[in-house]
Amino acid sequence: MKIQFKRLKKLPSLAIALFLTAIVVIAFTFASISQAKTLPLVLPSWQEGNSKETIIAFVNRVTTETSPSYVPPAERIAVFDNDGTLWSEKPFYFQLFFMADRLKSMEAEHPEWSTKMPYQAILAGDAQAIAQFTTQKELAELLAVTHSGMTVEEFQLLAKRWLKSAKHPRFNHLFTECVFQPMLELLDYLRANNFKTFIVSGGGIDFIRAFAEEVYGIPPEQVVGSNLKTRWEEEDGKFVLRKLPELGSYDDKEGKPINIDLHIGRRPILAFGNSDGDLAMLQYTASGERPSLMLILHHDDSQREWAYDRKSNIGHLDKAWDEAERRGWTVVSIKRDFKQVYPFN
Amino acid sequence: MKIQFKRLKKLPSLAIALFLTAIVVIAFTFASISQAKTLPLVLPSWQEGNSKETIIAFVNRVTTETSPSYVPPAERIAVFDNDGTLWSEKPFYFQLFFMADRLKSMEAEHPEWSTKMPYQAILAGDAQAIAQFTTQKELAELLAVTHSGMTVEEFQLLAKRWLKSAKHPRFNHLFTECVFQPMLELLDYLRANNFKTFIVSGGGIDFIRAFAEEVYGIPPEQVVGSNLKTRWEEEDGKFVLRKLPELGSYDDKEGKPINIDLHIGRRPILAFGNSDGDLAMLQYTASGERPSLMLILHHDDSQREWAYDRKSNIGHLDKAWDEAERRGWTVVSIKRDFKQVYPFN
Repeated sequence: MKIQFKRLKKLPSLAIALFLTAIVVIAFTFASISQAKTLPLVLPSWQEGNSKETIIAFVNRVTTETSPSYVPPAERIAVFDNDGTLWSEKPFYFQLFFMADRLKSMEAEHPEWSTKMPYQAILAGDAQAIAQFTTQKELAELLAVTHSGMTVEEFQLLAKRWLKSAKHPRFNHLFTECVFQPMLELLDYLRANNFKTFIVSGGGIDFIRAFAEEVYGIPPEQVVGSNLKTRWEEEDGKFVLRKLPELGSYDDKEGKPINIDLHIGRRPILAFGNSDGDLAMLQYTASGERPSLMLILHHDDSQREWAYDRKSNIGHLDKAWDEAERRGWTVVSIKRDFKQVYPFN
Repeated sequence: MKIQFKRLKKLPSLAIALFLTAIVVIAFTFASISQAKTLPLVLPSWQEGNSKETIIAFVNRVTTETSPSYVPPAERIAVFDNDGTLWSEKPFYFQLFFMADRLKSMEAEHPEWSTKMPYQAILAGDAQAIAQFTTQKELAELLAVTHSGMTVEEFQLLAKRWLKSAKHPRFNHLFTECVFQPMLELLDYLRANNFKTFIVSGGGIDFIRAFAEEVYGIPPEQVVGSNLKTRWEEEDGKFVLRKLPELGSYDDKEGKPINIDLHIGRRPILAFGNSDGDLAMLQYTASGERPSLMLILHHDDSQREWAYDRKSNIGHLDKAWDEAERRGWTVVSIKRDFKQVYPFN
C-alpha cells in the first residue's frame, strides 16, 4: 500500500484531475446512450406497416425545416373525431348510457315517457332499440332533455361523477378506459411534434370536456362538439350560464368544418375520423394549401373490439370509405394496425 | 519575474486549480447578476403604482405553488376585449374603416346606398355620422354586407391586405400600430407566467384573426368574436366555406360569457375590458371559484389618446365603472398608468 501511495504522489495532480474528468464524461455518455435505448419507441402499440409508416413519414415531412412540405408549428392543427375514433361507440354511443342514467333520475317527473319513444326504449333498457336512435333529431332531443336545466359548472360535476363510476357492459371497465391505446400514443406523438390536437365530435361539447383533458390531454378550449344554448343568469349575486333545452349547433357532417372554422379559424393539416359524419371534415382538411394527412379508422376486429362499416347505423362508414380509396387517404385497420386496442388489454 | 515563477512552482497544482475555479465561479456570479440587471423589467411601459402592483401581485399569487391562491397553469385563462382595450377605438371602431373601404369597392353595384343609411354616411365619409353607428343592428348589418360572399380564406387575404396599408387618420400609422404598448407587454407577461391569452371581442372574429397572431401573439383559435354563418360548398373539386350575410352570434354584453363558455369551456381568472359591453365578461370572471382579477381601461388621456367614458357611444363606460368601484376591480388609467401609449411613441 505504501508503495502505491508513493506512486500516486509522484503523478501530477493535474493529470489525476484529467483522468477523473475523462471517467465522468465516459460514464455520462454511456448513461445517456442506455437511457435513449430504454425510451419508448414511437407509437409502440401500432403494428409496423403502411399506416404507421404513413403517419411517421407525414410528421417527419411537415416538421423538417428544410423540407418543401414544412409547416410552421402554429399551423400544425390536428382534428380528431371522438366516438369510434378515440374511444369505442358500441353497443351505442357512450353518451347515450349517460343520457339513459339521466333519464332514469328524471323518470318520476315524466310519467309520459313510459309510452313515448325514444324515452320508453331507453328507460326499459332495450339495447337494440336504443342502438336505433342515431338521427340528428332523436339525439338532439335527448341531448336537450338530459343536458339542460343546470348551470355549466353543475353539468361538469354531474358528468364527471358519472364518468368515474359508470362501466361499459362488455368490458366492465370505465367508459374512459375504453379508449384506444394507439390513439392516445398518436395524440402524444403529434403534440411532441408541436401539433395542436383538437376533438371535433358530434357528441356533446360539455360531456367530452368532462374527461378530455384527463384522458386525452386535450383541454376544454380544444374540444368542439354539439352544443346546447345557454342563458346568462344572476343567482345569489353570482353570474352563471344555464344550459337550455335548445340546440346551438349539431357538430356532424358539414357542421364539423363549419365549427372548425368558428372555433379554430384555420384548416387542419391532419384529420382522423371513422364514419360518414367525418367526411366533410376530411374533405376540408384535404382541400387546404398545406400538405395534409387524412385517416379513417376501420372497425374490423369483432374479437377485440367490433366489426362494422357500410351497414352500421352507428359509425356508418360508406361514402367516406369510397372517398378514402379514391383519394388515397389512409384507412387504419384495428385488426391489422393496432397491436393493443385498450389500455387495459 | 524569475522569483515569482519559482514561487508559483512551489504552490501545489491542486491549490492553483481551486484558485482558478473560484475565480471562474465569482466571474459567472457577477455576470449573471449584471445580466439580471440589464434584462427588461417587468411591464416597462407601465408606471409604478397601484395598477401595476395589483397585476404583479395577482400573477405572483396564482403562480406560487405554495400559495393558497395557486391556480394550475391549465386554468390560467385570461380574456381581453379588443376595441378600446388592446387598441384604440376612436374616432370609431377601426373595423368600420375597413367596412367603409369595402363599401366603396362595392358601391357601383349598389346605387341604392347613396340615399340609404348607414351606407350614405359611410360612403360620404361623414365621420361624425359614422361614429353614431354603434347599435348591434347597424353593426351587424354592415358586417353582413361587407364581410360576406367570399370564402373564409379569401376574406383573410382581403383583411390582411387592407391592414398592411390602411392608416389611422390621426396618427398616420397602420391601425395595427395603434395598439397599446403596455397591453402588449401585459399579454407577454401573462404568457411568460403560463396564462393562455384570449381575445373576446364584439368585433368580427375573422377580421381580428387577420392580425391577432402577428400583432398580439394570439393565434386564431384563441380569438372569439362576432361571426357570420358560413356555407359548406364544393368549388372545382375543392371544399370551401363561404361567408353568408347572416349573423351567427353577436359577441357583446352577455354574448361574451356565452361565447367564452362555448369556445373556451371554463371561466377565466383574468378579464380586461373598457366598456359596458365587457361588464358581463367581467362579472362572469369575478363569479368563479378561483381567485380572479378584473381590470377596466379608462380612456382619460385626450393628449396622447382620447378621453371618454359615461357619455360616449363608442366605448360607453358607465355601469361597468360603477360596478368596478363597488367591487374593487382595478380601473387602469391611460394618463396615469401608461408611460408610453403606442409602440411608435
